[in-house]
Amino acid sequence: WYGRRLTNAQAGIPQGPRLLESAGNLHNLRLVAGKAQGAFRGDYPFQDTDVYKWLEAASWQLAQDTVAGRDTTALTAEVDRVITLVAEAQQEDGYLNTWFQSGRGAGRYSDLRWGHELYNAGHLIQAAIAHHRATGRTELLDVACGFADHIGTVFGPPGSGRPIDGFDAHPEVETALAELYRETGDQRHLDLAGYFVDRHGHGLHGHEAYCQDRVPLREADTVEGHAVRQLYLLAAVADLAIETGEESLAAASARLWHAMATTKTHLTGGVGAHHDKEDFGDPYELPTERAYCETCAAIASVQFGWRMALLTGQARYSDLVERTLFNGFLAGMSLDGESWLYVNPLQVRDGYVDGGGDQSSRRTRWFRCACCPPNVMRLLASMEHYLTSTDGRGLQIHQYASGVFHGEAGGAPVDVSVDTEYPWRGRIAVTVERTPGTSWTLSLRIPQWCTEYTVGGVAADAHVDVEDGWLRIHRSWSAGEELLLDLELAPRLVSADPRVDAVRGCVAIERGPLVYCLEQADHPGGGLDDVVIEAGGALTAKERPDLLGGVVTVVGTGYRRSLPEPGWWPYVPAGSPQAPGTPLELVAVPYFAWANRTLGSMRVWLPTS
Amino acid sequence: WYGRRLTNAQAGIPQGPRLLESAGNLHNLRLVAGKAQGAFRGDYPFQDTDVYKWLEAASWQLAQDTVAGRDTTALTAEVDRVITLVAEAQQEDGYLNTWFQSGRGAGRYSDLRWGHELYNAGHLIQAAIAHHRATGRTELLDVACGFADHIGTVFGPPGSGRPIDGFDAHPEVETALAELYRETGDQRHLDLAGYFVDRHGHGLHGHEAYCQDRVPLREADTVEGHAVRQLYLLAAVADLAIETGEESLAAASARLWHAMATTKTHLTGGVGAHHDKEDFGDPYELPTERAYCETCAAIASVQFGWRMALLTGQARYSDLVERTLFNGFLAGMSLDGESWLYVNPLQVRDGYVDGGGDQSSRRTRWFRCACCPPNVMRLLASMEHYLTSTDGRGLQIHQYASGVFHGEAGGAPVDVSVDTEYPWRGRIAVTVERTPGTSWTLSLRIPQWCTEYTVGGVAADAHVDVEDGWLRIHRSWSAGEELLLDLELAPRLVSADPRVDAVRGCVAIERGPLVYCLEQADHPGGGLDDVVIEAGGALTAKERPDLLGGVVTVVGTGYRRSLPEPGWWPYVPAGSPQAPGTPLELVAVPYFAWANRTLGSMRVWLPTS
Repeated sequence: WYGRRLTNAQAGIPQGPRLLESAGNLHNLRLVAGKAQGAFRGDYPFQDTDVYKWLEAASWQLAQDTVAGRDTTALTAEVDRVITLVAEAQQEDGYLNTWFQSGRGAGRYSDLRWGHELYNAGHLIQAAIAHHRATGRTELLDVACGFADHIGTVFGPPGSGRPIDGFDAHPEVETALAELYRETGDQRHLDLAGYFVDRHGHGLHGHEAYCQDRVPLREADTVEGHAVRQLYLLAAVADLAIETGEESLAAASARLWHAMATTKTHLTGGVGAHHDKEDFGDPYELPTERAYCETCAAIASVQFGWRMALLTGQARYSDLVERTLFNGFLAGMSLDGESWLYVNPLQVRDGYVDGGGDQSSRRTRWFRCACCPPNVMRLLASMEHYLTSTDGRGLQIHQYASGVFHGEAGGAPVDVSVDTEYPWRGRIAVTVERTPGTSWTLSLRIPQWCTEYTVGGVAADAHVDVEDGWLRIHRSWSAGEELLLDLELAPRLVSADPRVDAVRGCVAIERGPLVYCLEQADHPGGGLDDVVIEAGGALTAKERPDLLGGVVTVVGTGYRRSLPEPGWWPYVPAGSPQAPGTPLELVAVPYFAWANRTLGSMRVWLPTS
Repeated sequence: WYGRRLTNAQAGIPQGPRLLESAGNLHNLRLVAGKAQGAFRGDYPFQDTDVYKWLEAASWQLAQDTVAGRDTTALTAEVDRVITLVAEAQQEDGYLNTWFQSGRGAGRYSDLRWGHELYNAGHLIQAAIAHHRATGRTELLDVACGFADHIGTVFGPPGSGRPIDGFDAHPEVETALAELYRETGDQRHLDLAGYFVDRHGHGLHGHEAYCQDRVPLREADTVEGHAVRQLYLLAAVADLAIETGEESLAAASARLWHAMATTKTHLTGGVGAHHDKEDFGDPYELPTERAYCETCAAIASVQFGWRMALLTGQARYSDLVERTLFNGFLAGMSLDGESWLYVNPLQVRDGYVDGGGDQSSRRTRWFRCACCPPNVMRLLASMEHYLTSTDGRGLQIHQYASGVFHGEAGGAPVDVSVDTEYPWRGRIAVTVERTPGTSWTLSLRIPQWCTEYTVGGVAADAHVDVEDGWLRIHRSWSAGEELLLDLELAPRLVSADPRVDAVRGCVAIERGPLVYCLEQADHPGGGLDDVVIEAGGALTAKERPDLLGGVVTVVGTGYRRSLPEPGWWPYVPAGSPQAPGTPLELVAVPYFAWANRTLGSMRVWLPTS
């Protein structure tokens, strides 16, 4: 992750203010602060969130830079400038939304279906928490608390005396309020989050799935509707289950995660089957070229999954987080950090025509609806939050990346350092850096994709358990002791549940946590629509430091089909003979690195005949 | 077709005025005529077309009823009432559009992208032609000519002196104007059609494919954008090629038809791969459950294909027309003629959740955007137009249905009668009813799906040729002579070009021109997501007069898959063993008859393993 985070720090985050200026977001803040003339710029009432997400990303970056002893002067100045703008734009009673304040729409809270005011507030709160944690300063936190307090005076159940009983059709404020409770200790924030979550599914938005209003959450049996909305809401459900201990919320979040993972998740961890309404499809409806797999939905899935991992301690949640991070999420940003994918399809045809717009299968410098790029920035800048956890009895390593990680055992601090070239190599060295005299448990996740591994350096007195995806080593550690986990990374072929109709008769290549794909650039002389893999052929990993910033490719064997006899009708009697094909070496590259070369076709799932 | 047309005549068309009243269309006409108070009702500027399409359907029905000697008093009165309303709504200068006249929108022709004024005019013209042909009366034709003349004073190329150089982003007026030229002989109508066609593709609508503006038609190499718009436009291109003889137009229309048929047509003849923007997808992008296959697009394909058949005389065009009529089109109307499908998917999953709205995979009584139902009515009421043609040297039978058909040979009339139970039985008896003393050619299309047939009753002196899909019998006929064509209707399995990824490893059942599907109603005890067909098993046709109004089913053998081991991740190592299944008798019903029983799953393409 180091290289990707460096790109984010050096290319992604620094370009934020310029892009937010040219897209009009900063102008809109100045406009409502009375410091600019003109009209609201842009098409959407949620454009303030682009600013907030960038502030969150920049704040997490400041935290990193501070720990690393890097000069933070320039970024601090940019952040301060934008925070000042945000504070100036806020109204006296705490309300803040440049769309409605500049006279667009029919007035405050007049349109909870489309107005996105609480969604905006959620991202403001998350940015403020990041800034507070990173710098200890409270300027943005004060703005966020002011807005949160205002919301608390406006929204409440019938009989509460507050004027509006409702919720934002785009969830986000719920999980943000739960986190604000953690930051401030103010119970009102948690209660408000709980109120909003509870109001879903009772018809306040016409029982529309798109608005997360079809059924109450505790009764839902599958994820549905707009994928990002569903998953931000479920992150809040997990938050509430963690903070309140309510069993029915824990059960609902586990049940819905399970429905998502088993029936509505693409191989890349991406979610969302429909361009239309950006929603989850039916169970096992997992198209390839029309996979929606919005980058933001991958991020939301990671946020939800991480909370489930904390709630339950089960490895499967981090298994899916890993898969999503390395594939469905990471593909959203180009290798140079300067262009983006809103949707992340698993196939692009030879005859693909780019219709333009945000939902193109070609990378774009910025979007009309620019939710994804700053969302990528904030996740990359805060990646360390998703790597390890502590339960007070030791340290759990969920994701493998080099660094020093802190935990707690019996009230005393424990530190370990990890050294690895994962995901390219399977060797993971964990050194205990600080340990109390008492025994404690070091837990390492054995990834779901991994069927062979070796453990070295385990002392004779260690109690080693492998349970449900966790390698748990319990002993009294000494500082300097090293544990070696070696995960076998041989390339492999996977196939899908037969109910996934879209990829019947196909296999996909994986290596470690990475999903691979074929790109046209590596297969000159023809397209990919007619490429067939020999499923029984050898698969060879090749280190290619020259390619795509340095990747390991997987080379396999296959052929390019000869075209059927030309005719005017593409359907033929079953069993019609196929013409023989032309042998072809298949060169697969990691999916996350696709669409960084000349435009062309791509496919993850490869026919076997 | 007799039964379906009877349903249309007895259930479909008569309900029109009531539905148009309750949806507000007639109110809108009264409103702008100054005969009603209130606001425009409905959401779209093209709602007048629902009235016009119904008028067209009712007019063709009047023509039929008159020939058959049925009482037309009631329907005539309804038609007259609506025509009077339309005439009263027209403005003095000929303009007519209730949306803009009632103050919606920014004024006449201010929004050619979305305003649909010329699209409205096109349907008005088509209705007027139908009414004139059916009744000889000119009330509606006068209205239509008035509007057409008005349009001619407004639109024209730069330098023409006319104020607007542009075209409607929703084609329709072009093919209507060409037909109006045929009806009135007024060259200005044909010239105006040609002008509109020529202006496509030059950026007047930002080169958007959705608006049929990406490239000029003569340069286009595939069908793209909104399917109905593309095909209405291509119908006009074929019209112009017929009327003007321009080679480049004939070549473009043939090239684009070929691109559509070979790479963008579903097995049912349905077209349109995307819900989003209702457009054609990439070549071979032919999804099953997300097939859009709008009913109107099937109708547009028939209209385009029929014009190509007339332009070229080639059988393939009528082959696709037949397939589309019996499958992708006919499924759009319920068996009782009272509910509708806007989209016509080839699969509905066991876990399908009906999100409601026009694009549901469940039948609906009427739509918010009600383009399809009256479009079905007008095609069913004018079906006889698509069955035969004459080239002056005899008669060509394109589609098989019982009836008497007229042609011409050497300036003299020829009549034949056809007696058949097609598509249920393959026997087609053609009797020459009237013939001149000279020899002439009777041509019968041998359907593309048909590999075996017998011809009986051919006299010894007949010159019989089979060329490119036509059985041509040239001789000097005598009245009363009968020709017997017997098409072999054994059920068969078909598979798709391997580039159609969506149906890899699947086959579909066909019999004669009918595509078959499985419905859950015939397979109790489980869903269809796990049904597998034994591709080598026997297929048996069974006459089932009790089922779905009387159909022939096809019975095959297969099994229901045992479910894979439950887990949380639906992707497994390739080659993982499958559990054995449970044997199952498969009962396939004609696709056109699906969704007429209890709600459930459906599939056309069946996995073979």
